[in-house]
Amino acid sequence: MKVIPIFELIREDLERVERKMREVSTIEYEQLRTALDYLLGSGGKRLRPALVLLASKFYPADAEKVASLAAAVETLHTATLIHDDLIDNAFLRRGTPTLNALWNSAATVLTGDYLFARAAAFAAETESVRVVSIFAQTLMTICGGELKQIFGSDEGQTTRDYYYQRIYNKTASLFAASTEAGALLSEAPQTEVQALRDYGHNLGMAFQIVDDILDFAGDEDDLGKPIGSDLRQGIITLPTIYFLEAHPEDEIVSRVLSGRDDWVQAAVEMIKASGAIESSTVEARRFAAKSRDALSILPHNEYRQAMLDLTDFVVERRK
Amino acid sequence: MKVIPIFELIREDLERVERKMREVSTIEYEQLRTALDYLLGSGGKRLRPALVLLASKFYPADAEKVASLAAAVETLHTATLIHDDLIDNAFLRRGTPTLNALWNSAATVLTGDYLFARAAAFAAETESVRVVSIFAQTLMTICGGELKQIFGSDEGQTTRDYYYQRIYNKTASLFAASTEAGALLSEAPQTEVQALRDYGHNLGMAFQIVDDILDFAGDEDDLGKPIGSDLRQGIITLPTIYFLEAHPEDEIVSRVLSGRDDWVQAAVEMIKASGAIESSTVEARRFAAKSRDALSILPHNEYRQAMLDLTDFVVERRK
Repeated sequence: MKVIPIFELIREDLERVERKMREVSTIEYEQLRTALDYLLGSGGKRLRPALVLLASKFYPADAEKVASLAAAVETLHTATLIHDDLIDNAFLRRGTPTLNALWNSAATVLTGDYLFARAAAFAAETESVRVVSIFAQTLMTICGGELKQIFGSDEGQTTRDYYYQRIYNKTASLFAASTEAGALLSEAPQTEVQALRDYGHNLGMAFQIVDDILDFAGDEDDLGKPIGSDLRQGIITLPTIYFLEAHPEDEIVSRVLSGRDDWVQAAVEMIKASGAIESSTVEARRFAAKSRDALSILPHNEYRQAMLDLTDFVVERRK
Repeated sequence: MKVIPIFELIREDLERVERKMREVSTIEYEQLRTALDYLLGSGGKRLRPALVLLASKFYPADAEKVASLAAAVETLHTATLIHDDLIDNAFLRRGTPTLNALWNSAATVLTGDYLFARAAAFAAETESVRVVSIFAQTLMTICGGELKQIFGSDEGQTTRDYYYQRIYNKTASLFAASTEAGALLSEAPQTEVQALRDYGHNLGMAFQIVDDILDFAGDEDDLGKPIGSDLRQGIITLPTIYFLEAHPEDEIVSRVLSGRDDWVQAAVEMIKASGAIESSTVEARRFAAKSRDALSILPHNEYRQAMLDLTDFVVERRK
C-alpha cells in the first residue's frame, strides 16, 4: 500500500482499515464488486481515515474499533462522492470515469445508498453511541448543505460567510467528525477531544479553500479536470468572491456564472491576475494556523507532529 | 390523527412518534419543508412504527427511546421509497405525485439521503448500539436486494425461492427489524425478542404477498395505481410464478415481461383466471399463520391481541 510519507507512522493502522474496507466489496455480483473495489480502493490519500487514526493515538484506544470508524468515515465519504457525481452529471473524477458515466442512475443511486448503509454498519461496530450520533449528524450536515444549494435563496451567495458555511457543511464537518470521533474512542479528556475536533474543523476549511484555489491556479494534468470547472458550474468559491468584492461592476465573471461557458478562460485569467488567489491563500493559511494552534494542549509526541506536518501538506499540495 | 382501529391502543405513542417526525421537516427552505411535511405526514398507515411500539409493550421500556426508533424506521422507509420512485421513474404513489415528478433528480437523491441521515440520527437516539447495528444491517439488506435486481443474473427469477428472498430483502427485513429492535428496547428476554422478530418477519412476508396479489386482483381506485403495474415493469411476483409453473409454454406473459405493454391486460386476466391468485393467497395465509404462531410464547395481553388482529388486517386488506 502506498501512503504519503507523513502517514508511515500509522501505516499498519491504515492497512487494517484497508482490510476492513475490502470487506465491503465481497459482494456476489462481479460488475458491482469490481466497481466497489475500484471506488473504495487505495487510490485516494486516505486523509479522513488518517485523521481518525491520528486523533485516537494520544491515549489508549481499541485499534479495531478505531479502524471501524476510519472505514466508516471513508465509506461515507465515498458514498457522498458517488451521489454528488450523479447530481453534478460529472463523468470524470481525478481523470477516471465516475459510476454514473458507466451505469444508469438507478445503479448509481443504489450503490451510494448501499455504501451509506455499510458506513453506518462500520460506525455501529465502534459500539459507541456518541460516535454513531456524530456520524449521523455529520451526514445530515453534508446533505443539508447540499439541499441548501438547491432550495435556499441565492441571496448572499457572494459573501464569505455563505462560502464558509458551505465549505464547513461540505468538507470541514467530516474532517471535524473524524478527529472528534477518533479522539472519543480513546481515553482522551473532553478538552482534548474538543481540541482535536477544532484541529479537524480548521484543517478541513483550509483543505477546501486550497481545493478551490487549485481550480483556478492548479495544473490540469495534476488535477485530472479542467481549470475553472467551479465557475463553469456556477459555483462561487473564495477566489471569485474576492474578485467580485474588488470589482463589483465586472461583467465577464457574471456572464460565466449565468451560463456563458465561452468566457470561462477569460474569467479565470482575470481572477488570477486580480490578487484574489493571494487573498484566498492568506485565508487558507489562517485556518491552517488555527488548526495548528488547536493542537497546542495535546501531548507533544510524534502523532502531534504528524498532524502539524499534515496541515503543511494540505496547504502546500498542488493537487 | 387518524389511526386504524387496532392502533387505538397505542394512539398516544403514535402521536409521540408523529411529533418526533415533524422535527424532520423543521428545515429552513419552504419548498423542501412542504415536501417533507407531506412525505412524512400522517397519510400512511404507520404500520412499521406501530410494530415497533407494540413489540416494546410486553416489558418495561423507555417510551421516548421507543418513539425515536419508530421515527427512525418510518423515516428510513420513506427515504427508500423516495429513491425507489426515482429509480423506477414512478410519478405517482398511492395516487399522489412522487418527489421525482415534481423535482429534478438531484433534489430527489439528496432529499432521500437527508432522510437516511435523519433516520440514523433517530436510531442513535435510542442509545442502543445493538439497535443501531440492526438498523444499519437492515438498510444494507434492502439496498443489497435492490442491487441484486440490477446486477444479479436473471437466472432463477421465476422461482419461488428467488421471490421469497426478494420480498424478504425489500419488505420483511424492515418489519422484522422493527419488532426485534422494539423488543430489544424493552426488558424482554432474548427468546421473546426472537419470537417478536419472527412475528415481524412472517407478517412482512404476508404483507408483501398480499401487495403483489392486489396488483392483479385489487381495485385501481383503492390502490391509486393501474392494475398489472408489476408485470408492466417486468417484475415477476408470486401470482405470475404460479401461473408460469402451471403454464411453462405460455407466450402472453412472456411477451409482457419482455416489454410488450399492449398485452398487460390479457396477461392479468389469464393469471387471475388460472388459480394463481388463490395459490398465492394460500401462501400469504401460511406466513400469516406463522406470524401468529410466533406470538404464542408471549404474555397473553391486549398488545398480543392487537398484533394478532394486525395479522388479520394485513391479510384481509383491499389496498
